Amino acid sequence: MSAHERDPIREAHRQWVAHGWDDAADGMAMVTSLVRAHQLLLERIEAVLRPLDLTFARYEVLRLLSFSSSGRMPMTRLGSLLQVHPTSVTSAVERLVRQGFVERQGRDDDRRVILAAITDEGRAVVEKATDGLNGEVFAAPGVGPGQVADLTRLLGALRASAGDRVE
Amino acid sequence: MSAHERDPIREAHRQWVAHGWDDAADGMAMVTSLVRAHQLLLERIEAVLRPLDLTFARYEVLRLLSFSSSGRMPMTRLGSLLQVHPTSVTSAVERLVRQGFVERQGRDDDRRVILAAITDEGRAVVEKATDGLNGEVFAAPGVGPGQVADLTRLLGALRASAGDRVE
Repeated sequence: MSAHERDPIREAHRQWVAHGWDDAADGMAMVTSLVRAHQLLLERIEAVLRPLDLTFARYEVLRLLSFSSSGRMPMTRLGSLLQVHPTSVTSAVERLVRQGFVERQGRDDDRRVILAAITDEGRAVVEKATDGLNGEVFAAPGVGPGQVADLTRLLGALRASAGDRVE
Repeated sequence: MSAHERDPIREAHRQWVAHGWDDAADGMAMVTSLVRAHQLLLERIEAVLRPLDLTFARYEVLRLLSFSSSGRMPMTRLGSLLQVHPTSVTSAVERLVRQGFVERQGRDDDRRVILAAITDEGRAVVEKATDGLNGEVFAAPGVGPGQVADLTRLLGALRASAGDRVE
């Protein structure tokens, strides 16, 4: 958007009020702002992860596995920690296996339980990705420390209202 | 996520601090919270739009066209208002044309300028979609009115820092 354009979300809010949708106008502006902020952050995240051939979803899988004491975790547990559908976990892990970053294993005491285990290559790439994300995005996400805390708290309230456990 | 699980974002924050990434831990928690809140809101939005065979991106195109006085707009203008890449606008409009919700027209005074024009069917579906989104999502986005205002303001600061014009 060029600098002399108006704010399109503010414009949409005006239209909402003009159409008599007053009770929904503020919520529309908030939701649309969140969708836009997500898009802007994702562009920055993908600029870091694309050269490493990772998406944010696959990065999160590697990150969780690298934090676990044994470097492996049942697929079902991954899904519940990542709060995504089992089919999303399966397709992310399948891609990571093809990339050599994860191996699939049967659990020793019950071969029917399928574990995802991070490889040395996986550990190397997740460390590189975390360095990049910390430096390029997380340490300077675009608003100051106080606003970061306020945003996290408000987004937590939104998550909690949808059933997430939020501490 | 089941109710007795811990908050995975809080857990990730603990890991970040434990690894000495203190300067990035709060930003990581904020960005991850925003990605999660976006996912939860998008699920609610898609539950409204899926029965109408619309995505949020295509809904936004129809909404903009329906607000314009003539019901039509140059493709380039759509892209700048929606703050998305021209190829995204093209593919959204192509799909809307196939659905019968939009027609492509050359501008009367310069046939090289391609306009997207909303059809009667497009106007009917965008009205239905807006009713649904207002009632199901925007009027009750999951946090109270004060929090909605605070969130919009903070997300606006984040958008502005990335170069968006924010009023």
